Amino acid sequence: ALRGLLEPLHAADIADLLEQVGAAQRQEILHLWGDEIDGEVLSELDESIREEVISALPRDVLAGAVRELDSDDVVDLIEDLEEPQQEAILGALDVSDRAAVEQSLTWPEYSAGRLMQREVVTAPEHWTVGDAVDFLGRDHELPDQFYHVILVDAAHHPVGYVTLGKLLSSRRATPLMQITEDSFRTISARQEEGDVAYAFNQYHLISAPVVDDSGRLVGVITIDDAMAVLDEEHEEDMLRLAGVNDESHVSDGPLTTAKQRLPWLVINLCTASLSAIVISQFENTIARLVALASLMPIVASTGGIAGTQSLAVAVRALAARDLNSSNAKRVVRRELLAGMLNGISLAIILGSAGALLFHDFRLGLVLGMAMIANQIVAALGGVLVPLTLDRMGLDPALASGTFVTTLTDVMGFFAFLGLATVILL
Amino acid sequence: ALRGLLEPLHAADIADLLEQVGAAQRQEILHLWGDEIDGEVLSELDESIREEVISALPRDVLAGAVRELDSDDVVDLIEDLEEPQQEAILGALDVSDRAAVEQSLTWPEYSAGRLMQREVVTAPEHWTVGDAVDFLGRDHELPDQFYHVILVDAAHHPVGYVTLGKLLSSRRATPLMQITEDSFRTISARQEEGDVAYAFNQYHLISAPVVDDSGRLVGVITIDDAMAVLDEEHEEDMLRLAGVNDESHVSDGPLTTAKQRLPWLVINLCTASLSAIVISQFENTIARLVALASLMPIVASTGGIAGTQSLAVAVRALAARDLNSSNAKRVVRRELLAGMLNGISLAIILGSAGALLFHDFRLGLVLGMAMIANQIVAALGGVLVPLTLDRMGLDPALASGTFVTTLTDVMGFFAFLGLATVILL
Ligand SMILES: [Mg+2]
Ligand SMILES: [Mg+2]
Ligand SMILES: [Mg+2]
Ligand SMILES: [Mg+2]
Ligand SMILES: [Mg+2]
Ligand SMILES: [Mg+2]
Ligand SMILES: [Mg+2]
Ligand SMILES: [Mg+2]
Ligand SMILES: [Mg+2]
Ligand SMILES: [Mg+2]
Ligand SMILES: [Mg+2]
Ligand SMILES: [Mg+2]
Ligand SMILES: [Mg+2]
Repeated sequence: ALRGLLEPLHAADIADLLEQVGAAQRQEILHLWGDEIDGEVLSELDESIREEVISALPRDVLAGAVRELDSDDVVDLIEDLEEPQQEAILGALDVSDRAAVEQSLTWPEYSAGRLMQREVVTAPEHWTVGDAVDFLGRDHELPDQFYHVILVDAAHHPVGYVTLGKLLSSRRATPLMQITEDSFRTISARQEEGDVAYAFNQYHLISAPVVDDSGRLVGVITIDDAMAVLDEEHEEDMLRLAGVNDESHVSDGPLTTAKQRLPWLVINLCTASLSAIVISQFENTIARLVALASLMPIVASTGGIAGTQSLAVAVRALAARDLNSSNAKRVVRRELLAGMLNGISLAIILGSAGALLFHDFRLGLVLGMAMIANQIVAALGGVLVPLTLDRMGLDPALASGTFVTTLTDVMGFFAFLGLATVILL
Repeated sequence: ALRGLLEPLHAADIADLLEQVGAAQRQEILHLWGDEIDGEVLSELDESIREEVISALPRDVLAGAVRELDSDDVVDLIEDLEEPQQEAILGALDVSDRAAVEQSLTWPEYSAGRLMQREVVTAPEHWTVGDAVDFLGRDHELPDQFYHVILVDAAHHPVGYVTLGKLLSSRRATPLMQITEDSFRTISARQEEGDVAYAFNQYHLISAPVVDDSGRLVGVITIDDAMAVLDEEHEEDMLRLAGVNDESHVSDGPLTTAKQRLPWLVINLCTASLSAIVISQFENTIARLVALASLMPIVASTGGIAGTQSLAVAVRALAARDLNSSNAKRVVRRELLAGMLNGISLAIILGSAGALLFHDFRLGLVLGMAMIANQIVAALGGVLVPLTLDRMGLDPALASGTFVTTLTDVMGFFAFLGLATVILL
């Protein structure tokens, strides 16, 4: 009955279903279903529960499942598993598939070498359309997915590629080299997978040959895998910016979730103490004018929002390669000016409201001046923190939110209480 | 000289370059370069400067540029232009291309109908491989990009598709219907483009036929365009979450930037006043124990970070369709428990530090209890705000950051000062 329900679903949807139920239900489903599982389902499963599911499967079921997968999917499946589970899966493959997977695993984690499939379709560069068509027509084991015939020279260096559409629409006598695509570019197996995803999106690539250090063809990356990487990179940016460990997933339990988030909370506890220290310097001021205690969070909080805005824009622009050394100066100057403009607008609103409500022009002035100062700091901090992290070779998204809001809190309290001490007392 | 520098660059890189320089430099480049421009460059340009660039081009240069584009790229180019500019571009197309573009424009904005290209390759469902190969071999004008031959019935309903790889590797006598792909699924022209991008990523689609309301084939969407949409949706989520108008771009000037960000800053100014009102209720408490004024932002700020974490996870999970009605309850319960756990951890740290530093056990108790309460509110608010927005049919990312941090600020100040009033005074 369960099989009947799951059968019409796509492997990716079955994987999502397994992720969305609780751990107990998951074991039940696997148990009821378990005499045969689609390898694609394993490959679609989120890493957070993959190990759990693989451990629950009998060895022969697992072996049957992985044998249908392309080499890139097997690599993705086993790269994060423990040694014995890895061995169980490698053992299920035939010799040539196993060799292909082990070759891919020699490349660094998160590199193009891990992302590529070893199954490629190549042709010698001197072939004609007829040669290629005849070659493909003979009953070879062609990959499930291929969009180009890659032309290679005698040393197996890729020199161009031809789309299957061109192959089908050109005369048999046409040399392949005459109908290659302009979009051709090779990817180094060492290239970081995020850069690979960027290149696919930027240049509308559908597939790209991967080369080793001596420029020899070792595999091919297809756009569907690049799209998945782009999606993961985005997830990572969004979560890191918010101070969440990027391994987080909807199937995680409460304890795992709490652990993922605690580190940045503790760090924030420490940085927030900075604000407390700043405020404590002004205890005399507050004691003399208690209303200041209720007004001070307005300046700090509006600064926090402005810093977060500027930060999100900068992190996104860095990820999209829209912000780089060629325009960094212009963007920083823009943020400075934009912060100043919004600071003035907000200062007018808050300043007049404060002056009117408290019948005190000087209080309005203090609120307004503190607001302008903090908006400028926020706008600059939001762009300079990620730019600096990026220059240092660190991830600009890495919890920069905590740094920037600490900055705006400290600056907000200091500017407001400091100005109040000078002007109001 | 300029042409020599730009010639070897990909259109997408030239577009980026035009985006990254200032407006004056941009006009200069266009002027120096302007007697011929690649249509692809226009199509790659960000919307924020597209209108500016198009206005700067002489009419005949513009006409030459758009004639080389596929229908989907022309649609993308003109859909946001003013009437007269639209007319200038449409006028440059030949009759059949113009009809294709105008047809696409009848579908709603951000729909599959706007994303599809009208150029499709179809075959009657009863054809054999040989029929299809011969058809493609005759010198038709085939689209630049196609990966499948779509099989249609007599009423032009798509019934399956065949990859070009299968076509090349199968015997001529094989009926096309015998070698169709399992991955086949059609997309309604009315479907929202974000859902289209999700489907491509989820089901590893490379291209998908688009049908009108009566199920007839009207176009095809290719994965490169779906990938671009996925990227834009991510950008939108990240920026909206931070309270930035999603039209923001690196080429914007300071005034545009300030205007994009002001609305949520003003809203935050109002919501932050809520915190001020809450604190002002406790002015007597603060007057009697001024140290409370410096400690209160710690509880509020740590709550803000926790709320942001929970929010980012929920918004991402909603965007990835990982969070839905089937598991919403479990996820909310998890957030509640995780918030409680982290609240306890943080309470122990902050409570003991407070008790030791101020030599006051009861102050430590107040800090700890307020921390637990606010962490729970933060974790719950972070997931319930986007879930509620989603239920209401609104975008869960829409500046929910402001709501959640207001909630944690108000709750943080209220819990801390309220408990202090009860326990310490
Ligand atoms: Mg999934
Ligand atoms: Mg596969
Ligand atoms: Mg991987
Ligand atoms: Mg693959
Ligand atoms: Mg990254
Ligand atoms: Mg870009
Ligand atoms: Mg671009
Ligand atoms: Mg195109
Ligand atoms: Mg568009
Ligand atoms: Mg297209
Ligand atoms: Mg969205
Ligand atoms: Mg705050
Ligand atoms: Mg998903």
